[in-house]
This record gives sequence, C-alpha cells and structure tokens, in this order.
Amino acid sequence: MRRLEETVLSSEPVYLGKLVNLYTEQVELPDGGTALREIVRHPGAVAMVPLAENDEVILVRQFRLAAGRVMLEIPAGTLNPGEDPREAAARELQEEIGYRPGRLEPLGGEFTAPGYTTEYIHLFLATDLEASALAMDDDEFLEIVRLPLAEALRRVDAGEIADGKTIIGLLQVARRLGR
Amino acid sequence: MRRLEETVLSSEPVYLGKLVNLYTEQVELPDGGTALREIVRHPGAVAMVPLAENDEVILVRQFRLAAGRVMLEIPAGTLNPGEDPREAAARELQEEIGYRPGRLEPLGGEFTAPGYTTEYIHLFLATDLEASALAMDDDEFLEIVRLPLAEALRRVDAGEIADGKTIIGLLQVARRLGR
Repeated sequence: MRRLEETVLSSEPVYLGKLVNLYTEQVELPDGGTALREIVRHPGAVAMVPLAENDEVILVRQFRLAAGRVMLEIPAGTLNPGEDPREAAARELQEEIGYRPGRLEPLGGEFTAPGYTTEYIHLFLATDLEASALAMDDDEFLEIVRLPLAEALRRVDAGEIADGKTIIGLLQVARRLGR
Repeated sequence: MRRLEETVLSSEPVYLGKLVNLYTEQVELPDGGTALREIVRHPGAVAMVPLAENDEVILVRQFRLAAGRVMLEIPAGTLNPGEDPREAAARELQEEIGYRPGRLEPLGGEFTAPGYTTEYIHLFLATDLEASALAMDDDEFLEIVRLPLAEALRRVDAGEIADGKTIIGLLQVARRLGR
C-alpha cells in the first residue's frame, strides 16, 4: 500500500471570520516534497429530511449568495461549539420550520468538499413531526415548501434541487423507503 | 411569495490563493438590513463514477488534509478556466485512473456548500472504459481501488465513504440501475 499521508509543517491563519476561518498550511508530501494547502475551517453542521405522515418532505427556499440564486434545501444549521448533532438537529428543525421531531434517525454524513474545507454535515431523517408552540426564528429569510417526496426526487433529477446535502438526504430516504 | 434575494453592497478580497479565493461581502437583506457574507470562490469541478463492465466502480484513495484522513472517492478534478466539463471529465479520468471513457452521461451536479462556497461539481457516469496508452499523472499521491458497486454502496451506508460528491454519484448510479 502506497504511503499517502501528509504532515503539516506550518499553519498560518489568513482570515478568522464569522462562519469560516481560512488557514494556509505547508505540508510534507509522502515523497518528502512540500506543498501548500488552503484549508477552510468550519464548525460543522446538521441537516434534516423532515418527512411528514402524508409522505411530504418539508423544505426551505432561501437565497444563497455563493450560488447566486434562491435554492431549495432541507433544513440545516451550523453546530454550536460542543453541541451534540442530534440536539442541534432538533433545535434547527424548530427554528427553521417550527416542528419538533419525535424521531431522528441518522442518515450518515458527508464531508462537503474535503479538498479544502473541514466541514462535515451530520444528516438525519426526522419523522413523527409535531408542530411546536415555540416561536420560529424570525431573522432568517426563508420560505417553507412542502412537497411530496416523489416530486422532490423529480426535482433532484431535473437539477432544480442542486444543494449537495439535500440531494444526499433525499436519495438516502428514497433508498431506505424503496422508492 | 416572500422576497428572499440579497443585494451585494461591497466586496473585499481577503485572500487570493492557489485553489480558492476568499471574499467578504456586505449585503442588503430583503428587509433593508445589512449582513456580512464570507464567500469562498472556487473554479468548480468535475467528478466521475467510472463503472466497468463487471459492475465494479473505480475509486481513488487519497489523503485529505481538511478531513484529517485518507478518503475513498470517485475520481474528480478542478475545472481549468473556460474548460468544458465533459472534456475535463475525460481528462481527469485519464490523469487519475488511466482510462478513457467511451461514454459520459450527466448525473446532475451539486453546490457543495452554497452557504459559503461557489463551488459547483458536475457529475458524470463514465462507461465503456478503455485503458489508455497515455501516462497517468505521477504527481498525485493516490491509490486506485476497484470495488463491486454493491460493496461501494455498503461502504456509503457504513459511513466509510464520507465524501459528498462520491455519495451522490454512487447513489445516483444505484438509482438508475435499480440497485
């Protein structure tokens, strides 16, 4: 088996920000050479596929500046420092769509872009949804969209749903349910 | 329908790098307030699921510093400026695994993390694979791994395959083939 690991020789913070930090790191390559790596440090996130009893998924439309467009996504949010992903999932569902999940099942997770960002997203299937009496966050500009799972999958195939975590979540749920 | 769009008021380059550039942007929110957005600009990428006639997929193992581990991924690569994704897909397959695809079918694409990066990955299913006489790139530290598609899917479910584009590619191929 070939040696693949790199060793960090030095790490320089370039930008310490609100959501992300950027570092440049000098690494030693397996053959003894060196290379520069640009690493975005991100706290990680959770994303949930909320599936209602009538087979509808509850999605959110929001503007994504980096994509330059409004996108249809599963509810998600950044992890607070030290926060348990399952607790974060319940919190974010409440804040974004106003539901409490009776049941949260892990759907695995993903490194979004391991070539340059540390971000890992924990994915969950959220069922037994109960409308919550708590107020939703009012400072997020988003619109809630309910769609039959089959229609959401059609939009994945049509490229209308183009957010990575959303595609993974919907395809995993479809696979589990044999759709 | 609620107004969701943000308008960029100012954009400041924070870091202009080798793979990524980082900008901070002031935006006007739909309600007239303002907010700061941190945007990683990335040239975009292609990723291919190479499926051989014996139902094996050809994957690559490589060390990913941002993930802190060796990862099993589908072959992929960054787009050159102005490069056609289909041509990039053929080029990267040759460079990474030494095959020319007789057939490339689009599998859609994904914004990897539209909350902060512009990166969009074009995904393809690559079949009719022909071993190429051209030399593979020698400056990439990676190991080629052939696995039955069913075993690759098992590793997705077990969390051993944790790269976003790889999960999407494998799940899309499984769905198309009815696995």
